[in-house]
Amino acid sequence: MRSLIAMLTDFGYRDGFVGAMKGVILGINPEVTIVDISHEVEPFNVFHGAMLLRAHFSYFPEGTLFLCVVDPGVGSERLPLVVKAGGYTFVGPYNGLFDLALESLREKPRAYRIEKFTLPVVSQTFHGRDVFAPVAAQLSRGLRPEEVGAPIEYEFTLRLEEPCMEEGWMVGKVIYFDRYGNCVTNLPCGNYKEGKFRGQRLYVVSHFLQGERDKPALICGSFGMMELFLPMEGAREKLGISLGEEVRVRLANN
Amino acid sequence: MRSLIAMLTDFGYRDGFVGAMKGVILGINPEVTIVDISHEVEPFNVFHGAMLLRAHFSYFPEGTLFLCVVDPGVGSERLPLVVKAGGYTFVGPYNGLFDLALESLREKPRAYRIEKFTLPVVSQTFHGRDVFAPVAAQLSRGLRPEEVGAPIEYEFTLRLEEPCMEEGWMVGKVIYFDRYGNCVTNLPCGNYKEGKFRGQRLYVVSHFLQGERDKPALICGSFGMMELFLPMEGAREKLGISLGEEVRVRLANN
Amino acid sequence: MRSLIAMLTDFGYRDGFVGAMKGVILGINPEVTIVDISHEVEPFNVFHGAMLLRAHFSYFPEGTLFLCVVDPGVGSERLPLVVKAGGYTFVGPYNGLFDLALESLREKPRAYRIEKFTLPVVSQTFHGRDVFAPVAAQLSRGLRPEEVGAPIEYEFTLRLEEPCMEEGWMVGKVIYFDRYGNCVTNLPCGNYKEGKFRGQRLYVVSHFLQGERDKPALICGSFGMMELFLPMEGAREKLGISLGEEVRVRLANN
Repeated sequence: MRSLIAMLTDFGYRDGFVGAMKGVILGINPEVTIVDISHEVEPFNVFHGAMLLRAHFSYFPEGTLFLCVVDPGVGSERLPLVVKAGGYTFVGPYNGLFDLALESLREKPRAYRIEKFTLPVVSQTFHGRDVFAPVAAQLSRGLRPEEVGAPIEYEFTLRLEEPCMEEGWMVGKVIYFDRYGNCVTNLPCGNYKEGKFRGQRLYVVSHFLQGERDKPALICGSFGMMELFLPMEGAREKLGISLGEEVRVRLANN
Repeated sequence: MRSLIAMLTDFGYRDGFVGAMKGVILGINPEVTIVDISHEVEPFNVFHGAMLLRAHFSYFPEGTLFLCVVDPGVGSERLPLVVKAGGYTFVGPYNGLFDLALESLREKPRAYRIEKFTLPVVSQTFHGRDVFAPVAAQLSRGLRPEEVGAPIEYEFTLRLEEPCMEEGWMVGKVIYFDRYGNCVTNLPCGNYKEGKFRGQRLYVVSHFLQGERDKPALICGSFGMMELFLPMEGAREKLGISLGEEVRVRLANN
Repeated sequence: MRSLIAMLTDFGYRDGFVGAMKGVILGINPEVTIVDISHEVEPFNVFHGAMLLRAHFSYFPEGTLFLCVVDPGVGSERLPLVVKAGGYTFVGPYNGLFDLALESLREKPRAYRIEKFTLPVVSQTFHGRDVFAPVAAQLSRGLRPEEVGAPIEYEFTLRLEEPCMEEGWMVGKVIYFDRYGNCVTNLPCGNYKEGKFRGQRLYVVSHFLQGERDKPALICGSFGMMELFLPMEGAREKLGISLGEEVRVRLANN
C-alpha cells in the first residue's frame, strides 16, 4: 500500500540506526515511501525535535505518518504512543515530542499506547527499530491506531514559551539556531516596525538581501517565526549568540 | 506518474528544510522518486553547487528533473527558473547554479521564469519549499516547462576558469576539496607526464594505491578533473592547501 | 521490478558521490527502492563499515541487496565482488567489508567476481558509480549473481576479535563509538553481574535511565554488544576513551 512515512530522530546519519529502522519498515510494507525530515536533532533534545516537527509537518500531505524518535527515556516506563490529529498520525515516545505540532493543530489528539505489533524481540535501547518502526509500518499498511493498544488521555507537557509584553515591546528569546547561523526566536511573524537586541536597534527586512553587511536584522523566517540574522554570515558565531538571549520587537502601528 | 527528481541544496540535513520540500513534492506527486545529490553545499556558495551538479548530473537518466537551491538572493528580484537542455530539466534560482552543467551539454538551454504553480503562500526566505518544490512536482507529473511562465533568454554568468598554458605547462588551480581531503583542480583529465605544486614535482598515478606515502600525487579523479592527493590521508589538511593554489601539469608527449 | 538496495559507504553526504550512484541505479531500474544505511563510515576504514553492516543487515528483509563501498584499494588489483548468503546479496570490493556480516550468517557464501555489467567507461577512482552501482541495479532487476562473472572461493580476512577469559573476567575492548559517545565493545550481550574499566567497578543496567549521573555503566546496546556509557552524556568525550581500551565483565552466576 502506497503511503508516506516521514522520519525525525536524533540518531544521526553515521551509525546506521535509521537504516535499520527503514529495513524493518520495508520488510513489513515494501510499497511505503519514506522521507527524512532530520536525524540531526541534538541528542536527547526533545524540544529541538518538537520545534522541527512543528515547523515542517504541515507541508506534508494529509495521511502522512510521522515516525519520530528523540527518546532519552528509552526502555524506562515512558509510554510508546500512536497519536492521531488533524489527519496526521504520529508514532513515537510519549515525552512531549509531538506537543508543539499537535498544539498548532487545534484538535484534541486521540492517543493509544503501543502494546502490539512490535518486533518479536524488543531491546531496551532501540525502540525506534524494535517498537516504533514496525508499528509505523503496520499503520502504513492500513492498521488502525486503535488496534495498537489502549486509548489514553493525551496530556501536553512541552510548550513554546510565549513572548510577553513590556512597555509596548514584545519580548521573546532565541530558541533555535539553523545551519546558516540564523537565530530563530519565539516571536511570531508579524508586521513589526523595529526590534531590539543587546540594547541596540534592529531593523526589520522582508528578504535577506535587504540586510546591510555587519548589521544584525530581523526577518520572518522559514520556521514561521522572527529570526535574527546577519547578511551572508552566521549571526550565531559572529555575534556569539546563546540560546535564550532576549530579542524584542515593536509593532509598526505603535 | 513515476519520474525522478534529484535534489541539490545548501540546506543541510539538520534543520528539516529538505524534508519540508519533499513533503510538498509528495503531496503533489506521490509516485515520484526523489534522490539527494547533496544538501551540504557550502552555505550561499553557488559555485560549489554548480561544481557538484556538473560532476554528477550526467549519471542520471534522461528525463531527470534537477531541483537545485543555493539561493543567497531568495526573496529578491532574482528570477525563479525552469530550464530544459539535453533531455534534462533544471528548477531553481537564476543565479548561475546550472551554468557549469548546462555548458557541458552543448545545447542552447530553453528557459522559463516561474510565474505559476507555487504554493498559495510564498515566503520571502524559503523558495525551495514554496516555489521550486511545487513546480518541480508539477513538472514531474507532466506539466510542460513552457506552462510555468514566460520564456526568457538564458544567459550564462558562471564559468569554470580555464587553465592557461605557460612554457609547456598547463597552469590550473585548486577549486574544490572533497570529503577525503583530495584537492580537485580545474585541470581536465589527460595523459600527463608530471605535475608541479609549490615548486615541487608531482608524479601522476592512475589509481590511489600507486601513490607513495607522504608524497602528493596527481590522479584523474571522480569529478573528471585532475586531483592532488596524498595516499590514505587528506592532502588538504596535511599540507594546508587553500582554494586557488596553483597546480601545473605537463603532457606526456612534451 | 520492485526490490530493495541498501547502501553503505564512506563517501559522505557532501560531495554528491552517493547521488551519482543512485542516478546510475535508477537509470537501470527505475522501480527499485534505495535505502541508506550510512555514508559516514570513517574514510578508508573497512572495519568500521563491516561493523555497521553486521549490526544492521539482518533487520532488512530477505532478498535485500547490500551495495557497500569502503574501498581504499579502488582501481588496484583487489577484486570487485557479488556475494550471496543467507538470502541476501552483497555487492562491493573484496576486502573484508562483508566478513562480519557473512560470519554471523553461518552459511558458506557463494562469491563471484564482477566481470560484466559495469558502465561503458570505468574510472580508476570511483568503482562505486562505475562498477558496483550498475551491477547492483542489474541484480535488482533479476540478473543472477552467477551471470556477473566467474565464481571464486570466498576467504574471510576480517574478524571481530573475541574477548578472552582471565580469572573469571571476560576481557574485551572498545571497538566503536556511536553518535552519542557510547563506547561499543566486543563483549557480547549477556547476563553480567558487573564490569571493570580503568580499575573501577562498572555496574550493569538494562536501560539508559537506570544509570547514575557521572557514573559510567554497561548496557546491552543497539549493536547487540555491551556498551560503556554515561547517562545523558557522551562517555567518549567526557572520559577521553580511546579505541582499544580494555573493558571487563563478569557473569552474574560467578
